[in-house]
Order: sequence, then structure tokens, then C-alpha cells
Amino acid sequence: MNLASIKALTFDVFGTVVDWRTSIALAGEQLGHRRGLQVDWYEFADAWRRGYEPAMDRVRRGLLPWTSIDGLHRIILDQLLEEFAIQGLNTNDKDYLNRVWHRLDPWPDVARGLARLRRRFLIAALSNGNMALLTNMAKRVALPWDCILSSELARHYKPDPQVYQKAAEMLGLAPGQIGMVAAHIHDLRGAMAVGFKTIFVPRPLEYGPAGNPDLESDPAFDLVASDFCHLAEKLGA
Amino acid sequence: MNLASIKALTFDVFGTVVDWRTSIALAGEQLGHRRGLQVDWYEFADAWRRGYEPAMDRVRRGLLPWTSIDGLHRIILDQLLEEFAIQGLNTNDKDYLNRVWHRLDPWPDVARGLARLRRRFLIAALSNGNMALLTNMAKRVALPWDCILSSELARHYKPDPQVYQKAAEMLGLAPGQIGMVAAHIHDLRGAMAVGFKTIFVPRPLEYGPAGNPDLESDPAFDLVASDFCHLAEKLGA
Repeated sequence: MNLASIKALTFDVFGTVVDWRTSIALAGEQLGHRRGLQVDWYEFADAWRRGYEPAMDRVRRGLLPWTSIDGLHRIILDQLLEEFAIQGLNTNDKDYLNRVWHRLDPWPDVARGLARLRRRFLIAALSNGNMALLTNMAKRVALPWDCILSSELARHYKPDPQVYQKAAEMLGLAPGQIGMVAAHIHDLRGAMAVGFKTIFVPRPLEYGPAGNPDLESDPAFDLVASDFCHLAEKLGA
Repeated sequence: MNLASIKALTFDVFGTVVDWRTSIALAGEQLGHRRGLQVDWYEFADAWRRGYEPAMDRVRRGLLPWTSIDGLHRIILDQLLEEFAIQGLNTNDKDYLNRVWHRLDPWPDVARGLARLRRRFLIAALSNGNMALLTNMAKRVALPWDCILSSELARHYKPDPQVYQKAAEMLGLAPGQIGMVAAHIHDLRGAMAVGFKTIFVPRPLEYGPAGNPDLESDPAFDLVASDFCHLAEKLGA
């Protein structure tokens, strides 16, 4: 394990940096209040997120052309509005709801942790979220990325190897000079397969109190930290 | 002229944001001092920059495969070392010199101007510089980009329309919602051709006291400002 080679850290975003579940549920509750809807918005958020992997797989298998995450979120949203029997939303409401993914709030340790990590490393988002989504999100809550990278640049989704390879190319670094930070085992395994260093930061509440998050690290990963401040400490930042 | 539609500003970088000529000349002088070289480094910087358009044209005409600006800079550098009869540089020196383009300093108004503009607009680099170059540059001198965009994402160089179209796609905005800010007429005409708003900020000293910069605006451009603080004032930021 040679962490001294790390020049840059790339971060998974949904779940690792931001608490999508709470953010979506709260936004849904606000919209529901204005439109007089009775919906369990936590269940709605979970269902929306569950639709995400199958939607990406449809693109991978060629059943859909390349589609940004904004586009996939909208496809799933339109299905969920039927499933949850949500009526009375106009086009603006639906656009607003779909763009809640641009307005997710970070976990409490993120601002302090990223500020520390940034002093020592180049820090970049590396998410399946599209560039516009990630840029709007970062601006709204002041995530201090040195640059924003997205699966969109490779026209592949994580954990496909092309995404990590494209990120290394964009940063002008060898894969071994980059540490992928994620709460998800499959993302880190994808990064490891192309030679990235791997840093596991579990997020026990990502899927809510009854969720089933990744908690056990893989012994092959380079580092485990309980949050971004702990990570900064472990990396001497 | 409807500037109220502008949501984002994209900035040309070399010459518009940073003073490449002085930065390169000073870095060359330092290296020359260490290696005992007698070179007019301002002349060297000018020659390096003059090689840039012809190099991009070789890619456009298919004489070279797609090459990042780091790669083009290095091709030109190797020619210049011969032309200026510079000897005694080792590989590290040459790499260091080529990467001086990652370490350019901004014009004096940039920090304050961008800070103001950023409060009101999404601000992004949109340069022929590659992502790694722009990211390293921004980190070193704290350019507060909301995101970094590069011609590299389109695999075309400005002023090819694909670059501006890709930028609009990445920002999730219509071209008319984006203002291109540049010191160069040809860049603004390229942006205008795909529907961007156009903001001319002349930089009289870009090519030094004897240079021949663009000073006259095109009446078709939407706005002219003398520097980024003046621009912030004109845009109410």
C-alpha cells in the first residue's frame, strides 16, 4: 500500500458526498404540501434511486441510446408518478422535481473534510451525474472541487473502466496517482481494476435507518475512513 | 441585446484571464539563470505562442491526430529549443518548461472580478488548454471556476463550433443563456456563430508593449468591458 503516490482524489458523489435520500424526501414533502399530495417521499426517494442501476443497464445493453443522468432520472420519475398515483403536477413541477438531484445536501463532515483534503490533494468529483448536475450542486452548497469530472465525459457509467480511464486522462495523471473515494464497493472495485488507489468511506445512513448499505470493506482496498475528516487525518491533510 | 438571459459566463483563458507572456518569460529567465542560458525569454514566449495556431491547424487538417495543448506546446517547444540554440536542458527541464503553461498568473483584476461575477453567474473556463492544464492553473492561483470546460471535451479547438456547442451541453443551457468572455475577436465570433452572447474584454498588453492585440470591438458583440471588475459592474454583479 503506497499512498504517498496519490496526487489527486476523485469522489463518488451520490451517497458518498451528498445525502440524496433525505434531500429528495424533504423536497418532495415541500412540493407535496404545495400541491396537496399524500406520498411517502422517503419511499419515493428509495424507489427513484432503485430505478437508477436498471436504467443505466438499459443503456449499457443498447436498449437506450446514451442518456445523461438527468435524462434517466426523468424516465424513472415519469414511471414513479404513475406507480405512486401522483396526479396534478404540471410540467414545471416535474422539471423542478427532476432537478432536485441538482440540489442535494452534503453529509455534515463534507465541507470541513474537503477543505482539509484540498490543501494537500487535487480534489475532483467523479460521478455518474452529468456535468450540469454536478456543477449546479457544487455551486449551491460550495463544494470546493478543483474540477468536476463526470461519466458523461466517457459516455459510459461507473463502474465501467472507461470512466476511470477518462478521469485519469483528464487529470493528466497515472491511475496509481489517483485515489477513488466512495461509499460503494462496486465503484471502488471498478476503480481498482484500472489501477486507482481505493478509499472506502461507508455511509451507514445512505439508504435510511432500514437500508442495506455497504459497511464491510474489501481487504484489497487501500484505506478505510469513517468520514472525510477522518480521511483527512489519515492522509495527513 | 438581451443580457438578462445570461445564466453562465464562459471565459477564454490564455490572454483573457492569465498573462501568459510575462509568466512564461519570468519562468524562462529563472530556468535560464539556473542553467546559464542567454535567451530573450520574452521573444521566446512570443514565438511559442505564435506556433500555437499553426499547430492547431495541423490537427484540423488531419496532418496530426488529436493532440492536447500540452502535446502541441511540447512539439513547438522542441522546435524552439533548436531555433533559439538552447542546449544543456535535460528531460526534466523540458517537462518543467512545457508545464509553465500550467503555472500562468492572472491579470490583476481577475481575482476580484471573478469573485463578484461568481455571485451572480455560473462561471466556467472554456479554453483550448486541456483539462489538466486548466485544473492545475486554477488550483495554483485560486481561480474560482464553478467548473472547468475545455476544447478537449469536444476534441476540437476554438473557434470550431463544436467547442461552444459541447460547453452549452455540459452546462445544460441554451447557447443564448451563456456569455463568452474573451480578449480575442475570433473566439467571440466563433461563440456568436452558435448563439452565445459575446463579451469583449481587450487585454492591451497581452503581446507586450510592441504587440498587436485586438482592441477594436465588433459592433455585433453584446458588451465590451475594460476588465473583469468593469464587467461585474456592467452586469450588476
